Amino acid sequence: MVDVVIIGSVALDSIQTPFGKVRDVLGGSATYASFAASFFCKPGIVAVVGDDFPQEGLTLLEKRGISLAGLKREKDAKTFRWEGYYEYDMNEAKTLRTELNVWESFKPVLPDEYRNARYLFLGNIDPELQMDIITQIKSPKFIAADTMNFWIEHKRERLKDMIRKVDLLLLNDAEARELFETPNLFRAARSALGLGARAVIIKKGEHGALLFTKSTHFNAPGYPLENVVDPTGCGDCFGGGLIGYLAKTDEPSEANIRRAMIYGSAIASYNAEGFGLEMLKKISVADIEKRFNEFRIMREF
Amino acid sequence: MVDVVIIGSVALDSIQTPFGKVRDVLGGSATYASFAASFFCKPGIVAVVGDDFPQEGLTLLEKRGISLAGLKREKDAKTFRWEGYYEYDMNEAKTLRTELNVWESFKPVLPDEYRNARYLFLGNIDPELQMDIITQIKSPKFIAADTMNFWIEHKRERLKDMIRKVDLLLLNDAEARELFETPNLFRAARSALGLGARAVIIKKGEHGALLFTKSTHFNAPGYPLENVVDPTGCGDCFGGGLIGYLAKTDEPSEANIRRAMIYGSAIASYNAEGFGLEMLKKISVADIEKRFNEFRIMREF
Repeated sequence: MVDVVIIGSVALDSIQTPFGKVRDVLGGSATYASFAASFFCKPGIVAVVGDDFPQEGLTLLEKRGISLAGLKREKDAKTFRWEGYYEYDMNEAKTLRTELNVWESFKPVLPDEYRNARYLFLGNIDPELQMDIITQIKSPKFIAADTMNFWIEHKRERLKDMIRKVDLLLLNDAEARELFETPNLFRAARSALGLGARAVIIKKGEHGALLFTKSTHFNAPGYPLENVVDPTGCGDCFGGGLIGYLAKTDEPSEANIRRAMIYGSAIASYNAEGFGLEMLKKISVADIEKRFNEFRIMREF
Repeated sequence: MVDVVIIGSVALDSIQTPFGKVRDVLGGSATYASFAASFFCKPGIVAVVGDDFPQEGLTLLEKRGISLAGLKREKDAKTFRWEGYYEYDMNEAKTLRTELNVWESFKPVLPDEYRNARYLFLGNIDPELQMDIITQIKSPKFIAADTMNFWIEHKRERLKDMIRKVDLLLLNDAEARELFETPNLFRAARSALGLGARAVIIKKGEHGALLFTKSTHFNAPGYPLENVVDPTGCGDCFGGGLIGYLAKTDEPSEANIRRAMIYGSAIASYNAEGFGLEMLKKISVADIEKRFNEFRIMREF
């Protein structure tokens, strides 16, 4: 039995930033999100890797208490790979190469032990796969979904269908503007709520994140980082930490969603201070609580 | 006797946005800043206009209780004029034309009734003029100064000298990055504090503003606006509201600076909802208090 089902990529990333470079390190949205969620509850990953995926990566995730029952290992096939770099301002990942490999033909089937999970996090995969996963969960209590520009451009209508099915839509500011065809984030959020999502979170990188519901608005700040080393996975850490905290409370009220955003931001802020999973491997729940409290202090007035 | 001395432009603006256009309307940084400050205390403007400046503009400012004793009226000369437009995303003013006119030769001399003011707001004028004004105030309790890219590019060393003399430096994120040659706002703020400013505020438009002191950090959110009509003067409203509130409390503690930032943001948010001074003329202190309270609610967790 897992608390949260997380679908997304488990990948090998090659990253270059002004502060160094790494080659074929463990990455992917489901990896970051489940690692972040594992500080609060037991996540289970739905993904696929090839037989080139290193055993030490799997061991690392299992040691964190993350279930890999939904992780398919494909023979004679290659793992999803991403290669990218960040320029001096570190605000935007520039993609050099994306190899879908095993993901091209992946048709996820949830293991029985996942089907009773009450919390579901749909990483930014094909909206048709996202909808298929929703139908495989028996009685979901809270569904959060991320998306990305590729699906906005290629499967806009299916994406909108998916949004109708979820409790919480997460997307970044550029995606929100593109999907709802307005530069105004408030209006973009209203459009998403109009489709049927109960809540929308717009992620703004270093500027924090905004939560909108039909009648309320919450502004989560960014954590002021002096040393950003590698922002890869920060958005996934935010989402994973958020769903993990909600699953722990088992009460997805707005008050808890607000706190969950701060926990997600705290984990994401640590993540940016090292390459790949380097920082997530080091930090403890006490470290996360420390930054959660700093967030309170830095916004008191 | 005035509470705050505000130096900056009193101008005639021509503005075009996707929502309309206006020609030769009352504008300028000192106009917006003093109007915003006037909700809390008695400001006095230091500026110069030509004999083409409409009497109704002066009457409007005087009726707000703003002293014009420091406003020089130059004969046979033209008022400062700015013409600009905003594109669809409304984030950045594009300048079409700047006519300095009377400002080219302006050497401000403070009237006696200004010299005992305890609060000083230096708009984004030549840093040498900013320093000259500082010496004309007998015993300043709190000096805030704004700047702009032109001075960063043309008078960097004099600007740094000026920063050494002030309690609070205000600048926007792009200016902070340019002046301190780093994309990281935290580091830019540290550099400003290193020069001797007691506090630094980095304005980020719709993303709010950040306050840094040697040991603390405060994150002021942006107000979520659905209808941005004309952002001209919002930064000046923020600064003017801030210094006006501090003068009212007469205690420039960090707690009060934090509250002052929220008041400044509240006034700026109204200002963006109409052209020129249209909204500032309409709102009351009760309206400002209403948004101040909304700011509290939208960041509780």
